[in-house]
Amino acid sequence: MIGDLALIWSAQMLHNSGLTNEELISVLPVYDEMRVELMAGQYLDVYEQSLGTQSIERSLKVARFKSGKYTIERPLHFGAALGKADAGLVSIYTNFGIPLGEAFQLRDDLLGIFGDPTETGKPSGDDLREGKRTVLMAVAMDKSNKTQLEEIKKLFGDPNLTSAQVQRLQEIIIETGAVSHIESMIEEFTSTSLSALNHGGISPVGKGLLTELAILATSRKI
Amino acid sequence: MIGDLALIWSAQMLHNSGLTNEELISVLPVYDEMRVELMAGQYLDVYEQSLGTQSIERSLKVARFKSGKYTIERPLHFGAALGKADAGLVSIYTNFGIPLGEAFQLRDDLLGIFGDPTETGKPSGDDLREGKRTVLMAVAMDKSNKTQLEEIKKLFGDPNLTSAQVQRLQEIIIETGAVSHIESMIEEFTSTSLSALNHGGISPVGKGLLTELAILATSRKI
Repeated sequence: MIGDLALIWSAQMLHNSGLTNEELISVLPVYDEMRVELMAGQYLDVYEQSLGTQSIERSLKVARFKSGKYTIERPLHFGAALGKADAGLVSIYTNFGIPLGEAFQLRDDLLGIFGDPTETGKPSGDDLREGKRTVLMAVAMDKSNKTQLEEIKKLFGDPNLTSAQVQRLQEIIIETGAVSHIESMIEEFTSTSLSALNHGGISPVGKGLLTELAILATSRKI
Repeated sequence: MIGDLALIWSAQMLHNSGLTNEELISVLPVYDEMRVELMAGQYLDVYEQSLGTQSIERSLKVARFKSGKYTIERPLHFGAALGKADAGLVSIYTNFGIPLGEAFQLRDDLLGIFGDPTETGKPSGDDLREGKRTVLMAVAMDKSNKTQLEEIKKLFGDPNLTSAQVQRLQEIIIETGAVSHIESMIEEFTSTSLSALNHGGISPVGKGLLTELAILATSRKI
């Protein structure tokens, strides 16, 4: 119920944020679309958990809808609507925003398991104890040999993991090559994202700011 | 999650309902306020259930926020906003709408326990098996003698009530005088509601329609 209230308050805040009536009307379609996408992502996430199997492709889709789109693409579309951008710019923002949102989420997966808790603010090992189905874990399982897979299945998602077991799982994940695979996916997605800025239609200043955004979103430690 | 999606879709439907931009902007504050009130009512309802005690006054407050306001008062305020009504008319709608919304809810309480399932579409006895805390039940407990109260406490909220036990509870509720008490409350609230229409500011046509609404809302069988 607190979640429902927060959902309503967030709409109320947008309505009272100081936008002109014309501006507010122009962002409402983006806002609605973003919220429907987020629900779809949340549904896919729960559905994915219920399947009990991992798939890199499905995990990427969850990441795209659950966080990628509302983290980067849709906020840019908000700006596009406020600035009365043409369809070309809106589509550049999509080509820039979707892969960057995915790269952002992949960085989040890594930080959730390997991040420094004093920097991230999230207790280390929580994602492993919770059995959070991320692209990282899908890749780790995909690249595991039989022994590694058995050990992952035994430990992953056990809410009572000791620190030593958390560390053991971290080691296995690295040993499978999943971490370097995710790092190269982040690099690839960021590069795809940045190349969308080369198709004209964006001012040099805009290009500089968006490039900075791409670096901040994917190289972060928190 | 389906509830969250429906909440978002309902906003999207309002945004795309064919209102002009100016009309949409004028109803958003009413819409937001109505939704916050509804959450407050829902919270009060859950809180009330958790208390384990009944109070007529608190049950009436729940009824007002959970259904009274969004059933009558706020829809009228939507119309007022669309028709650019002055503050006087908005306040008449409040004085008309709040007691009528409460009367509507009291009728609902009665139908939930005594209504004909083939007309209401709700299985008879469900409110009793569920232990739904309504004004009707608060009045019944308040007016019970010791024997009646013990029997109500034994049966009310038991999910496995037989038809005979449902019928027994219905009889006790009538015997306490709660049903006729609620009928007179409905009459009093409806009369208060209708008297708000006598303070001028409403056209004869409007007054006729609102009077008809008051009758439909409180004399209904479904």
